[in-house]
Amino acid sequence: MHVAVLGTGMVGQAIAGRLADLGHSVVVGTRDPQATLARTEPDQMGNAPFSAWRDAHPEVEVATFADAAARADLVVNASSGAATLEVLGLAGADNLAGKVLVDIANPLDFSAGFPPTLSVKDTDSLGEQVQRAFPEAKVVKSLNTLTASLMVEPRALGESSTVFVSGEDATAKATVVELLESFGHDDVIDLGGIETARGTEMLLPVWLRLMGSLGTGHFNFKVVR
Amino acid sequence: MHVAVLGTGMVGQAIAGRLADLGHSVVVGTRDPQATLARTEPDQMGNAPFSAWRDAHPEVEVATFADAAARADLVVNASSGAATLEVLGLAGADNLAGKVLVDIANPLDFSAGFPPTLSVKDTDSLGEQVQRAFPEAKVVKSLNTLTASLMVEPRALGESSTVFVSGEDATAKATVVELLESFGHDDVIDLGGIETARGTEMLLPVWLRLMGSLGTGHFNFKVVR
Repeated sequence: MHVAVLGTGMVGQAIAGRLADLGHSVVVGTRDPQATLARTEPDQMGNAPFSAWRDAHPEVEVATFADAAARADLVVNASSGAATLEVLGLAGADNLAGKVLVDIANPLDFSAGFPPTLSVKDTDSLGEQVQRAFPEAKVVKSLNTLTASLMVEPRALGESSTVFVSGEDATAKATVVELLESFGHDDVIDLGGIETARGTEMLLPVWLRLMGSLGTGHFNFKVVR
Repeated sequence: MHVAVLGTGMVGQAIAGRLADLGHSVVVGTRDPQATLARTEPDQMGNAPFSAWRDAHPEVEVATFADAAARADLVVNASSGAATLEVLGLAGADNLAGKVLVDIANPLDFSAGFPPTLSVKDTDSLGEQVQRAFPEAKVVKSLNTLTASLMVEPRALGESSTVFVSGEDATAKATVVELLESFGHDDVIDLGGIETARGTEMLLPVWLRLMGSLGTGHFNFKVVR
Protein backbone atom coordinates (compact mmCIF):
# COMPACT_ATOMS: atom_id res chain seq x y z
CA MET A 1 0.00 0.00 0.00
CA HIS A 2 1.10 3.58 -0.64
CA VAL A 3 0.91 5.41 2.68
CA ALA A 4 1.47 9.04 3.60
CA VAL A 5 2.41 9.71 7.21
CA LEU A 6 1.86 13.38 8.03
CA GLY A 7 4.16 14.42 10.86
CA THR A 8 7.80 13.79 11.72
CA GLY A 9 7.60 13.40 15.50
CA MET A 10 7.74 10.24 17.59
CA VAL A 11 4.35 9.02 16.34
CA GLY A 12 5.14 9.71 12.70
CA GLN A 13 8.51 7.99 12.98
CA ALA A 14 7.06 4.93 14.71
CA ILE A 15 4.23 4.51 12.19
CA ALA A 16 6.35 5.24 9.11
CA GLY A 17 9.14 2.91 10.21
CA ARG A 18 6.81 0.05 11.00
CA LEU A 19 4.87 0.41 7.74
CA ALA A 20 8.12 0.44 5.76
CA ASP A 21 9.31 -2.66 7.63
CA LEU A 22 6.05 -4.35 6.66
CA GLY A 23 6.77 -3.64 3.00
CA HIS A 24 4.54 -0.64 2.38
CA SER A 25 5.67 2.27 0.28
CA VAL A 26 5.87 5.16 2.75
CA VAL A 27 6.20 8.90 2.25
CA VAL A 28 6.52 11.10 5.30
CA GLY A 29 4.88 14.49 4.84
CA THR A 30 6.27 17.61 6.44
CA ARG A 31 5.84 21.35 6.01
CA ASP A 32 9.24 21.96 4.46
CA PRO A 33 11.21 18.79 3.60
CA GLN A 34 14.49 20.64 3.15
CA ALA A 35 14.22 22.33 6.54
CA THR A 36 13.15 19.11 8.25
CA LEU A 37 16.11 17.18 6.87
CA ALA A 38 18.56 20.03 7.56
CA ARG A 39 17.75 20.12 11.30
CA THR A 40 20.53 18.45 13.28
CA GLU A 41 19.69 19.51 16.85
CA PRO A 42 17.57 17.45 19.27
CA ASP A 43 14.05 18.83 19.76
CA GLN A 44 12.72 20.51 22.96
CA MET A 45 12.08 17.08 24.47
CA GLY A 46 15.65 15.95 23.79
CA ASN A 47 14.64 13.59 20.98
CA ALA A 48 17.09 13.05 18.14
CA PRO A 49 16.33 15.13 15.01
CA PHE A 50 14.23 13.56 12.26
CA SER A 51 17.26 13.44 9.99
CA ALA A 52 18.92 10.90 12.31
CA TRP A 53 15.83 8.67 12.12
CA ARG A 54 15.72 9.13 8.34
CA ASP A 55 19.34 8.00 7.99
CA ALA A 56 18.25 4.69 9.53
CA HIS A 57 15.22 4.45 7.19
CA PRO A 58 16.50 5.50 3.75
CA GLU A 59 13.61 3.66 2.09
CA VAL A 60 11.14 6.19 3.49
CA GLU A 61 10.65 9.22 1.29
CA VAL A 62 10.16 12.73 2.61
CA ALA A 63 7.89 15.19 0.81
CA THR A 64 5.57 18.11 1.44
CA PHE A 65 2.24 17.31 3.10
CA ALA A 66 0.51 17.78 -0.26
CA ASP A 67 2.93 15.66 -2.28
CA ALA A 68 2.86 12.89 0.30
CA ALA A 69 -0.96 12.83 0.43
CA ALA A 70 -1.34 13.05 -3.34
CA ARG A 71 0.66 9.87 -3.87
CA ALA A 72 -1.00 7.84 -1.10
CA ASP A 73 -3.88 5.37 -0.92
CA LEU A 74 -4.06 5.82 2.83
CA VAL A 75 -3.09 8.87 4.89
CA VAL A 76 -2.08 8.85 8.56
CA ASN A 77 -2.42 12.06 10.56
CA ALA A 78 0.50 11.88 12.98
CA SER A 79 0.69 15.62 13.58
CA SER A 80 -0.07 17.20 16.95
CA GLY A 81 -3.69 17.91 17.79
CA ALA A 82 -3.08 21.66 17.75
CA ALA A 83 -1.62 21.48 14.22
CA THR A 84 -3.95 18.85 12.75
CA LEU A 85 -6.49 20.98 10.88
CA GLU A 86 -3.76 23.20 9.42
CA VAL A 87 -1.62 20.22 8.41
CA LEU A 88 -4.55 18.49 6.72
CA GLY A 89 -5.41 21.77 4.99
CA LEU A 90 -1.86 21.89 3.62
CA ALA A 91 -2.19 18.26 2.52
CA GLY A 92 -5.23 19.44 0.59
CA ALA A 93 -8.84 18.32 0.57
CA ASP A 94 -8.49 17.02 -3.00
CA ASN A 95 -5.55 14.84 -2.00
CA LEU A 96 -7.56 13.37 0.89
CA ALA A 97 -10.85 12.86 -0.93
CA GLY A 98 -11.99 9.24 -1.13
CA LYS A 99 -9.03 8.04 0.95
CA VAL A 100 -8.80 6.40 4.35
CA LEU A 101 -7.52 9.01 6.79
CA VAL A 102 -6.29 7.51 10.06
CA ASP A 103 -6.38 10.22 12.73
CA ILE A 104 -4.06 9.49 15.67
CA ALA A 105 -3.92 13.03 17.07
CA ASN A 106 -5.23 14.15 20.45
CA PRO A 107 -6.48 17.69 21.03
CA LEU A 108 -4.07 18.39 23.87
CA ASP A 109 -3.78 21.97 25.08
CA PHE A 110 -0.49 22.63 26.87
CA SER A 111 -1.10 26.37 27.29
CA ALA A 112 -1.66 26.01 31.05
CA GLY A 113 1.24 23.58 31.57
CA PHE A 114 1.23 19.90 32.44
CA PRO A 115 -0.93 17.88 32.45
CA PRO A 116 -2.53 19.39 29.36
CA THR A 117 -6.29 19.85 29.07
CA LEU A 118 -8.34 19.06 25.96
CA SER A 119 -9.15 21.86 23.52
CA VAL A 120 -12.26 19.97 22.36
CA LYS A 121 -14.18 17.33 24.33
CA ASP A 122 -17.44 15.79 25.47
CA THR A 123 -19.79 17.40 22.93
CA ASP A 124 -17.32 17.26 20.03
CA SER A 125 -13.95 15.73 19.22
CA LEU A 126 -10.94 16.34 17.01
CA GLY A 127 -11.92 13.26 14.99
CA GLU A 128 -15.30 14.82 14.23
CA GLN A 129 -13.71 18.18 13.43
CA VAL A 130 -11.45 16.46 10.90
CA GLN A 131 -14.36 14.57 9.35
CA ARG A 132 -16.43 17.79 9.08
CA ALA A 133 -13.52 19.75 7.58
CA PHE A 134 -12.75 16.99 5.05
CA PRO A 135 -16.13 15.39 4.34
CA GLU A 136 -14.81 13.37 1.39
CA ALA A 137 -12.08 11.69 3.45
CA LYS A 138 -12.93 8.45 5.23
CA VAL A 139 -11.75 9.35 8.72
CA VAL A 140 -10.93 6.56 11.15
CA LYS A 141 -9.85 7.57 14.64
CA SER A 142 -7.48 5.04 16.13
CA LEU A 143 -4.23 4.48 18.04
CA ASN A 144 -4.60 7.72 20.01
CA THR A 145 -4.82 5.86 23.33
CA LEU A 146 -1.30 4.48 23.67
CA THR A 147 2.33 5.49 23.33
CA ALA A 148 4.00 5.52 19.91
CA SER A 149 6.23 2.48 20.38
CA LEU A 150 3.27 0.35 21.52
CA MET A 151 1.03 1.56 18.69
CA VAL A 152 3.19 -0.39 16.28
CA GLU A 153 4.55 -3.15 18.56
CA PRO A 154 1.78 -3.92 21.08
CA ARG A 155 3.23 -7.36 21.76
CA ALA A 156 6.11 -5.65 23.53
CA LEU A 157 3.77 -5.61 26.56
CA GLY A 158 3.85 -9.41 26.63
CA GLU A 159 0.08 -9.53 27.03
CA SER A 160 -2.92 -8.69 24.86
CA SER A 161 -4.34 -5.17 25.14
CA THR A 162 -7.01 -3.17 23.33
CA VAL A 163 -7.14 -0.52 20.64
CA PHE A 164 -10.22 1.19 19.26
CA VAL A 165 -11.56 2.35 15.89
CA SER A 166 -14.19 5.05 15.36
CA GLY A 167 -15.50 6.10 11.97
CA GLU A 168 -18.42 6.34 9.59
CA ASP A 169 -17.12 4.12 6.79
CA ALA A 170 -17.17 0.36 7.47
CA THR A 171 -14.78 -0.46 4.62
CA ALA A 172 -12.29 2.15 5.80
CA LYS A 173 -12.47 0.73 9.33
CA ALA A 174 -11.88 -2.78 7.97
CA THR A 175 -8.76 -1.53 6.18
CA VAL A 176 -7.48 0.05 9.38
CA VAL A 177 -8.24 -3.05 11.45
CA GLU A 178 -6.20 -5.11 8.98
CA LEU A 179 -3.32 -2.66 9.33
CA LEU A 180 -3.59 -2.78 13.14
CA GLU A 181 -3.53 -6.56 13.07
CA SER A 182 -0.40 -6.46 10.92
CA PHE A 183 1.19 -4.37 13.71
CA GLY A 184 0.33 -7.13 16.20
CA HIS A 185 -2.95 -5.86 17.68
CA ASP A 186 -5.23 -8.76 18.50
CA ASP A 187 -8.07 -6.92 20.26
CA VAL A 188 -9.53 -4.11 18.15
CA ILE A 189 -12.92 -2.78 19.30
CA ASP A 190 -15.09 -0.94 16.80
CA LEU A 191 -16.81 1.69 18.94
CA GLY A 192 -19.08 2.93 16.14
CA GLY A 193 -19.24 6.23 14.27
CA ILE A 194 -16.71 9.05 14.42
CA GLU A 195 -18.71 10.56 17.33
CA THR A 196 -17.22 7.82 19.51
CA ALA A 197 -13.82 9.50 19.15
CA ARG A 198 -15.07 11.68 22.02
CA GLY A 199 -14.63 8.63 24.21
CA THR A 200 -11.10 7.71 23.18
CA GLU A 201 -9.84 11.30 23.14
CA MET A 202 -11.19 11.73 26.68
CA LEU A 203 -9.05 8.77 27.76
CA LEU A 204 -6.04 11.06 27.57
CA PRO A 205 -6.51 12.72 30.98
CA VAL A 206 -6.34 9.37 32.79
CA TRP A 207 -3.57 8.19 30.45
CA LEU A 208 -1.47 11.23 31.39
CA ARG A 209 -2.09 10.70 35.12
CA LEU A 210 -1.24 7.02 34.81
CA MET A 211 2.03 7.99 33.13
CA GLY A 212 2.72 10.23 36.13
CA SER A 213 1.80 7.57 38.65
CA LEU A 214 3.52 4.63 36.91
CA GLY A 215 6.54 6.70 35.83
CA THR A 216 6.32 5.37 32.26
CA GLY A 217 4.14 5.61 29.18
CA HIS A 218 4.80 1.96 28.41
CA PHE A 219 1.33 0.65 29.23
CA ASN A 220 -1.99 0.20 27.49
CA PHE A 221 -5.64 -0.26 28.36
CA LYS A 222 -7.22 -3.65 27.98
CA VAL A 223 -10.97 -4.02 28.04
CA VAL A 224 -11.45 -7.16 30.13
CA ARG A 225 -14.78 -8.81 29.34
CA MET B 1 -16.24 -1.14 60.48
CA HIS B 2 -19.33 1.08 60.69
CA VAL B 3 -20.14 2.18 57.16
CA ALA B 4 -22.77 4.55 55.79
CA VAL B 5 -23.76 4.02 52.16
CA LEU B 6 -25.53 7.11 50.85
CA GLY B 7 -27.87 6.15 48.03
CA THR B 8 -30.31 3.30 47.43
CA GLY B 9 -29.76 2.64 43.71
CA MET B 10 -27.84 -0.20 42.06
CA VAL B 11 -24.47 1.09 43.30
CA GLY B 12 -25.68 1.62 46.86
CA GLN B 13 -27.26 -1.83 46.96
CA ALA B 14 -24.17 -3.53 45.57
CA ILE B 15 -21.79 -1.81 47.99
CA ALA B 16 -24.05 -2.11 51.05
CA GLY B 17 -24.78 -5.79 50.41
CA ARG B 18 -21.15 -6.69 49.88
CA LEU B 19 -19.99 -4.80 52.97
CA ALA B 20 -22.66 -6.51 55.07
CA ASP B 21 -21.62 -9.90 53.68
CA LEU B 22 -18.05 -9.09 54.72
CA GLY B 23 -19.24 -8.51 58.27
CA HIS B 24 -19.32 -4.72 58.40
CA SER B 25 -22.09 -2.85 60.17
CA VAL B 26 -23.90 -1.06 57.35
CA VAL B 27 -26.48 1.72 57.36
CA VAL B 28 -27.94 2.85 54.06
CA GLY B 29 -28.73 6.55 54.01
CA THR B 30 -31.68 7.93 52.09
CA ARG B 31 -33.64 11.16 52.01
CA ASP B 32 -36.79 9.74 53.61
CA PRO B 33 -36.43 6.18 54.95
CA GLN B 34 -40.18 5.67 55.31
CA ALA B 35 -40.86 6.70 51.73
CA THR B 36 -37.94 4.64 50.39
CA LEU B 37 -39.16 1.50 52.15
CA ALA B 38 -42.80 2.12 51.21
CA ARG B 39 -42.06 2.18 47.46
CA THR B 40 -43.13 -1.09 45.85
CA GLU B 41 -42.94 -0.22 42.14
CA PRO B 42 -39.90 -0.85 39.93
CA ASP B 43 -37.93 2.33 39.07
CA GLN B 44 -37.76 4.00 35.64
CA MET B 45 -35.08 1.52 34.57
CA GLY B 46 -37.24 -1.44 35.54
CA ASN B 47 -35.13 -2.29 38.60
CA ALA B 48 -36.88 -3.82 41.60
CA PRO B 49 -37.70 -1.33 44.37
CA PHE B 50 -35.22 -0.88 47.21
CA SER B 51 -37.66 -2.54 49.61
CA ALA B 52 -37.29 -5.84 47.74
CA TRP B 53 -33.50 -5.65 48.08
CA ARG B 54 -33.86 -4.73 51.76
CA ASP B 55 -36.04 -7.79 52.39
CA ALA B 56 -33.08 -9.89 51.28
CA HIS B 57 -30.65 -7.92 53.48
CA PRO B 58 -32.45 -7.43 56.80
CA GLU B 59 -29.12 -6.87 58.59
CA VAL B 60 -28.66 -3.58 56.73
CA GLU B 61 -30.23 -0.62 58.49
CA VAL B 62 -31.93 2.24 56.70
CA ALA B 63 -31.74 5.79 58.05
CA THR B 64 -31.65 9.41 56.92
CA PHE B 65 -28.46 10.60 55.23
CA ALA B 66 -27.54 12.47 58.42
CA ASP B 67 -28.23 9.59 60.81
CA ALA B 68 -26.37 7.14 58.61
CA ALA B 69 -23.33 9.41 58.32
CA ALA B 70 -23.33 10.31 62.01
CA ARG B 71 -22.96 6.67 63.05
CA ALA B 72 -20.29 5.74 60.48
CA ASP B 73 -16.50 5.55 60.51
CA LEU B 74 -16.46 5.52 56.72
CA VAL B 75 -19.00 7.03 54.33
CA VAL B 76 -19.62 5.92 50.74
CA ASN B 77 -21.23 8.37 48.33
CA ALA B 78 -23.32 6.12 46.08
CA SER B 79 -25.74 8.84 45.00
CA SER B 80 -25.95 10.10 41.43
CA GLY B 81 -23.49 12.76 40.34
CA ALA B 82 -26.26 15.32 39.92
CA ALA B 83 -27.46 14.75 43.51
CA THR B 84 -24.08 14.32 45.19
CA LEU B 85 -23.46 17.77 46.65
CA GLU B 86 -27.03 18.03 47.94
CA VAL B 87 -26.95 14.51 49.43
CA LEU B 88 -23.65 15.19 51.18
CA GLY B 89 -25.06 18.49 52.44
CA LEU B 90 -28.00 16.60 53.94
CA ALA B 91 -25.57 14.11 55.47
CA GLY B 92 -23.98 17.14 57.10
CA ALA B 93 -20.44 18.48 57.10
CA ASP B 94 -20.08 17.73 60.81
CA ASN B 95 -21.02 14.09 60.25
CA LEU B 96 -18.41 13.79 57.49
CA ALA B 97 -15.57 15.65 59.22
CA GLY B 98 -12.48 13.56 59.84
CA LYS B 99 -13.98 10.53 58.07
CA VAL B 100 -13.01 8.67 54.94
CA LEU B 101 -15.52 9.60 52.23
CA VAL B 102 -15.42 7.26 49.25
CA ASP B 103 -16.87 9.07 46.24
CA ILE B 104 -18.14 6.70 43.53
CA ALA B 105 -20.36 9.19 41.69
CA ASN B 106 -19.86 10.42 38.14
CA PRO B 107 -21.00 13.88 37.04
CA LEU B 108 -23.20 12.57 34.24
CA ASP B 109 -25.58 15.03 32.59
CA PHE B 110 -28.49 13.29 30.88
CA SER B 111 -30.27 16.53 29.95
CA ALA B 112 -29.45 16.11 26.25
CA GLY B 113 -30.21 12.37 26.17
CA PHE B 114 -27.92 9.40 25.78
CA PRO B 115 -24.98 9.13 25.93
CA PRO B 116 -24.78 11.70 28.74
CA THR B 117 -22.12 14.39 28.80
CA LEU B 118 -20.15 15.43 31.89
CA SER B 119 -21.33 18.43 33.90
CA VAL B 120 -17.78 19.02 35.16
CA LYS B 121 -14.55 17.86 33.48
CA ASP B 122 -10.98 18.51 32.39
CA THR B 123 -10.23 21.55 34.58
CA ASP B 124 -12.22 20.30 37.59
CA SER B 125 -13.99 17.15 38.74
CA LEU B 126 -16.82 16.08 40.99
CA GLY B 127 -14.27 14.53 43.35
CA GLU B 128 -12.58 17.91 43.75
CA GLN B 129 -15.94 19.67 44.18
CA VAL B 130 -16.77 17.27 47.00
CA GLN B 131 -13.38 17.79 48.65
CA ARG B 132 -13.73 21.58 48.40
CA ALA B 133 -17.30 21.53 49.76
CA PHE B 134 -16.33 19.25 52.67
CA PRO B 135 -12.72 20.15 53.42
CA GLU B 136 -12.65 18.16 56.67
CA ALA B 137 -13.70 14.91 54.98
CA LYS B 138 -10.97 12.67 53.59
CA VAL B 139 -12.29 12.20 50.07
CA VAL B 140 -11.12 9.20 48.07
CA LYS B 141 -12.44 8.87 44.53
CA SER B 142 -12.70 5.25 43.50
CA LEU B 143 -14.84 2.58 41.82
CA ASN B 144 -16.44 5.09 39.43
CA THR B 145 -14.99 3.33 36.39
CA LEU B 146 -16.90 0.04 36.37
CA THR B 147 -20.41 -1.33 36.75
CA ALA B 148 -21.89 -1.89 40.22
CA SER B 149 -21.76 -5.68 40.24
CA LEU B 150 -18.08 -5.68 39.26
CA MET B 151 -17.18 -3.00 41.80
CA VAL B 152 -17.80 -5.52 44.55
CA GLU B 153 -17.08 -8.81 42.72
CA PRO B 154 -14.32 -8.04 40.19
CA ARG B 155 -13.32 -11.71 40.03
CA ALA B 156 -16.57 -12.37 38.18
CA LEU B 157 -14.61 -11.30 35.06
CA GLY B 158 -12.35 -14.31 35.47
CA GLU B 159 -9.27 -12.15 34.96
CA SER B 160 -7.52 -9.38 36.86
CA SER B 161 -8.54 -5.81 36.06
CA THR B 162 -7.73 -2.39 37.46
CA VAL B 163 -9.36 0.12 39.78
CA PHE B 164 -8.02 3.52 40.78
CA VAL B 165 -7.84 5.68 43.89
CA SER B 166 -7.43 9.47 43.95
CA GLY B 167 -7.22 11.53 47.11
CA GLU B 168 -5.15 13.81 49.30
CA ASP B 169 -4.93 11.65 52.43
CA ALA B 170 -2.57 8.66 52.23
CA THR B 171 -4.08 6.92 55.28
CA ALA B 172 -7.60 7.29 53.88
CA LYS B 173 -6.43 5.83 50.57
CA ALA B 174 -4.80 2.91 52.39
CA THR B 175 -8.12 2.21 54.17
CA VAL B 176 -9.95 2.25 50.83
CA VAL B 177 -7.35 0.02 49.16
CA GLU B 178 -7.82 -2.51 51.97
CA LEU B 179 -11.58 -2.41 51.44
CA LEU B 180 -11.12 -2.83 47.66
CA GLU B 181 -8.85 -5.82 48.23
CA SER B 182 -11.49 -7.36 50.48
CA PHE B 183 -13.90 -7.08 47.51
CA GLY B 184 -11.42 -9.04 45.36
CA HIS B 185 -9.55 -6.23 43.60
CA ASP B 186 -5.93 -7.20 43.06
CA ASP B 187 -4.73 -4.26 40.95
CA VAL B 188 -5.39 -0.89 42.59
CA ILE B 189 -3.48 2.05 41.13
CA ASP B 190 -2.99 5.15 43.27
CA LEU B 191 -3.15 7.98 40.73
CA GLY B 192 -2.25 10.69 43.24
CA GLY B 193 -4.21 13.61 44.66
CA ILE B 194 -7.93 14.26 44.25
CA GLU B 195 -7.15 16.26 41.08
CA THR B 196 -6.55 12.94 39.34
CA ALA B 197 -10.28 12.22 39.64
CA ARG B 198 -10.49 14.30 36.44
CA GLY B 199 -8.88 11.35 34.68
CA THR B 200 -11.15 8.62 35.99
CA GLU B 201 -14.34 10.66 35.62
CA MET B 202 -13.38 11.36 32.01
CA LEU B 203 -13.21 7.61 31.42
CA LEU B 204 -17.00 7.58 31.43
CA PRO B 205 -17.49 8.71 27.83
CA VAL B 206 -15.50 5.75 26.47
CA TRP B 207 -17.08 3.44 29.08
CA LEU B 208 -20.54 4.41 27.83
CA ARG B 209 -19.58 3.89 24.19
CA LEU B 210 -17.99 0.55 25.02
CA MET B 211 -21.25 -0.47 26.69
CA GLY B 212 -23.04 0.45 23.47
CA SER B 213 -20.56 -1.40 21.28
CA LEU B 214 -20.22 -4.51 23.45
CA GLY B 215 -23.90 -4.61 24.40
CA THR B 216 -23.08 -5.03 28.09
CA GLY B 217 -21.64 -3.11 31.02
CA HIS B 218 -19.97 -6.27 32.29
CA PHE B 219 -16.38 -5.27 31.49
CA ASN B 220 -13.56 -3.37 33.13
CA PHE B 221 -10.38 -1.62 32.16
CA LYS B 222 -7.06 -3.23 32.92
CA VAL B 223 -3.87 -1.24 32.73
CA VAL B 224 -1.48 -3.67 31.05
CA ARG B 225 2.13 -2.81 31.90
